[in-house]
Amino acid sequence: MKGKAGGARRARSGRADALAGGAVYSSRLENHRMADKQDEKKVTARSVDFAAWYNEIIARAELADHSPVRGCIVFRPDGFAIWEALRDELDRRIKKTGARNAYFPLFIPQSFLHKEAQHVEGFAPEVAVVTHGGGKELEEPLIVRPTSETIINYMFAQWIHSHRDLPLMINQWCNVVRWEMRTRPFLRTTEFLWQEGHTAHATKAEAEREALTMLEVYRAFVEDYLAVPLVTGRKSAAERFPGAEETYSIESLMGDGRALQCGTSHYLGDNFARAFEIRFLDTQNQLQHPHQTSWGVSTRLLGAIIMSHGDDQGLRLPPAVAPLQAVIVPIWRKAEEGEPVLAAARAARDTLEGAGVRVRLDDREGLTPGFKFNDWEMRGVPVRIEIGPRDVAARNAVLARRDRLGREGKATASLDGLAAHVSALLDDVQQSFYTQARDAMRANTRQFDDYAKFRAQMEGEGGGGMADVYWCGSAACETRIREETRATCRAIPLGQSGAAGRCLVCGEAAQERAFFAKAY
Amino acid sequence: MKGKAGGARRARSGRADALAGGAVYSSRLENHRMADKQDEKKVTARSVDFAAWYNEIIARAELADHSPVRGCIVFRPDGFAIWEALRDELDRRIKKTGARNAYFPLFIPQSFLHKEAQHVEGFAPEVAVVTHGGGKELEEPLIVRPTSETIINYMFAQWIHSHRDLPLMINQWCNVVRWEMRTRPFLRTTEFLWQEGHTAHATKAEAEREALTMLEVYRAFVEDYLAVPLVTGRKSAAERFPGAEETYSIESLMGDGRALQCGTSHYLGDNFARAFEIRFLDTQNQLQHPHQTSWGVSTRLLGAIIMSHGDDQGLRLPPAVAPLQAVIVPIWRKAEEGEPVLAAARAARDTLEGAGVRVRLDDREGLTPGFKFNDWEMRGVPVRIEIGPRDVAARNAVLARRDRLGREGKATASLDGLAAHVSALLDDVQQSFYTQARDAMRANTRQFDDYAKFRAQMEGEGGGGMADVYWCGSAACETRIREETRATCRAIPLGQSGAAGRCLVCGEAAQERAFFAKAY
Repeated sequence: MKGKAGGARRARSGRADALAGGAVYSSRLENHRMADKQDEKKVTARSVDFAAWYNEIIARAELADHSPVRGCIVFRPDGFAIWEALRDELDRRIKKTGARNAYFPLFIPQSFLHKEAQHVEGFAPEVAVVTHGGGKELEEPLIVRPTSETIINYMFAQWIHSHRDLPLMINQWCNVVRWEMRTRPFLRTTEFLWQEGHTAHATKAEAEREALTMLEVYRAFVEDYLAVPLVTGRKSAAERFPGAEETYSIESLMGDGRALQCGTSHYLGDNFARAFEIRFLDTQNQLQHPHQTSWGVSTRLLGAIIMSHGDDQGLRLPPAVAPLQAVIVPIWRKAEEGEPVLAAARAARDTLEGAGVRVRLDDREGLTPGFKFNDWEMRGVPVRIEIGPRDVAARNAVLARRDRLGREGKATASLDGLAAHVSALLDDVQQSFYTQARDAMRANTRQFDDYAKFRAQMEGEGGGGMADVYWCGSAACETRIREETRATCRAIPLGQSGAAGRCLVCGEAAQERAFFAKAY
Repeated sequence: MKGKAGGARRARSGRADALAGGAVYSSRLENHRMADKQDEKKVTARSVDFAAWYNEIIARAELADHSPVRGCIVFRPDGFAIWEALRDELDRRIKKTGARNAYFPLFIPQSFLHKEAQHVEGFAPEVAVVTHGGGKELEEPLIVRPTSETIINYMFAQWIHSHRDLPLMINQWCNVVRWEMRTRPFLRTTEFLWQEGHTAHATKAEAEREALTMLEVYRAFVEDYLAVPLVTGRKSAAERFPGAEETYSIESLMGDGRALQCGTSHYLGDNFARAFEIRFLDTQNQLQHPHQTSWGVSTRLLGAIIMSHGDDQGLRLPPAVAPLQAVIVPIWRKAEEGEPVLAAARAARDTLEGAGVRVRLDDREGLTPGFKFNDWEMRGVPVRIEIGPRDVAARNAVLARRDRLGREGKATASLDGLAAHVSALLDDVQQSFYTQARDAMRANTRQFDDYAKFRAQMEGEGGGGMADVYWCGSAACETRIREETRATCRAIPLGQSGAAGRCLVCGEAAQERAFFAKAY
């Protein structure tokens, strides 16, 4: 689940808000037939205004559009296809762990929210409330789910009676609503799509293991499939999910030096089990509360992909998740060259399709190759295949990779064996996106043992980056960091050596290092 | 979309409601380990109380459960897996037609609903209204989408400018909410899941063709994949979707003699285009309104599967849509027989899995084979594979088909070549389910030319069945039928011969036959 803890929410009123919703992007469909005018309209450079760049990429690549409903976006087909690819792969990985999908009601009786003390404190201020249905005022208002712990655990209480009913592992793909003050496409929207897993186990150890298993499922998925590099660990008490005993998080560092929480996994203890009176007879015939977890990732991951990989030419999509992995652009001048070039291009498309490559032949008329190159670069297609008359004669094609623009990213490949060549190239591009993003994250991650230097870095240009520091673990030092720098504790890495140090803030003995950064 | 026309809604206050929500089914998890007690608890026979049988099947096969939210159900994993299987296949078929998936907001400004006159009349009485968000009263209330024509067409107006932007073909999988007075699991629930397609075309002819294309996509999908036989055709004016010029429908006949609308496809004319000011420049540079369609099927299809195929032993799932296609039950008495039998069963499972069969080995301990047989019959698994010591010795297995219970449905197959045998058997069972349901529908479909006989049939035992009659097309005759018999016009078949007849009701000249039935 997206972290909803106090600290995270307070941070939102900081610089995040100044960037939010500022640049309004056009909701107009770019009309590609209107000659090559688009070439002239350069995207705002990342380095000039990262927030403006982000919004322009989303509009120009037609990923999403503003909607007439406050804080809600429309996922356009090119954006939704990325979500579908990502969802299908993650769904496979979740099912492999033994969880099964189910579906629970959108509406939750308002009283349910109040059953777990921290949970209601965390979510009550930001719920949407249905007060009327079928033309009548409801006796008890319904809230639109901001997350489903309450209604799912109400049902768990009906289903769990014996240790034989455990573990119970349920996942749900659905929409949720949180009344956010400031919204940004994908990163924070009033309605968003996500999956939320909910499990119940006979023992504390098993539930804790489950929470960590899902942390690793998310880490592997986001790093391998989305090519987004991460740091991982547990959250500080202030940053925990409302109602959790422990929250684990995967965090990445965006191109503007700010951290993005990409997914969380919570060990809930028996807090919800007690609130909803879930009990089972254990093997000794004793009544026990089960121990529980919940875990989720959301459409926010689309924001992570855009910000981790995009460049000043537009979107860059990792091949694993790209709805379109390769585009073929046929090139010719003289009319008589057209048919042989198109025939070779069609044959190449059929070959690649047969090999399972998601490919499109761009045979649109009236557009220059240069326009098409720019267009597909903007849309983030990982590999472009150019075929001209000389290529046909030589049984060749030129492959251009999106991760390296210009001459150095181009190579000639034989049309015979094209599928193997393109498949290998796609693997290479996938790896390259990850390496580039990882190197950028490393370059912007610094160790500090001097609070003044840390503070200067966080207050300076460039968003601050990721800070790797010793922290004594006290709320006082954490609060001082947040109030003075707006940085928050992103993750405390697991399995540290235990080598002692001095807290960055108070200088007292500290057992653990933690990542601090300003966050989305 | 589910038909929301006046006639259909009025019919709900009839016998449908008497059946609705009557039998409360247990929300308890059946504890399979509690010996073979379940054998004793027979399901209510279909012939005794169809509604009670339906509710019991849903509970016992663990497809769904009641929720604490009025009119909403919980889809349990075994029920949701059927929805996932059918959704994935239908999604492939929809994409093949050229439509792409997108996602639009759950909430719709209340004023949007009022822009199309018939649409607001049809839906306003049954919407859920959000009046508060983030702790404050909203300036304009938001409705929870009952269907998305309004918000999607608002966006279409932003995206459509030129004939080159057409056709625009969008599909959305989502939840929708309609405040129904009487609900029944899957068939009519306050919240349900569905897909809704929305398209815009340059010409009327193209839009009309699209509506019919989708009717055929639905027909083929429901008949081939769900094995549910259908009649199809257009709706009468009284039964049209609010805002449509023409509604086409696929209709099936359930085991209790009542019709179930399984999906609809609407030609909307330019009604929504005018309401939302969607205009495009045609090839002559003239501003035109596009012509539109919308079309949808919902989780109601799960109800169609249950009612079309289920029997007094429980659920029966067509292999194409069955989350589990085959179950292997190992059988032995003496301890020393156990290991060889289990080894053979595991090998059979691996073989079948390798061949793409969705199979499970039921090696649960402490349960008799007889209990397992009943359990899997209740859950509707199409093929059961029994392996005992003598089978192992002879390298055989016994295959039992769910479509034919008892000795006549059993056959011996060699363990060598098992995968091919089981795959062929699954195809045969799929076909058999369709044939059985089609024969049942035919046996309960009658032609009438005498109104008194028609009325007696509709008022008699057995739900009335499907009536195939000449109808003059007048609203007066349709109203009389509905008021006197509660039957409604389900579909007017397309492409009729044109042979003239006499209207069943008034005896005037009639050009077309129509299907009338009492409906869910």
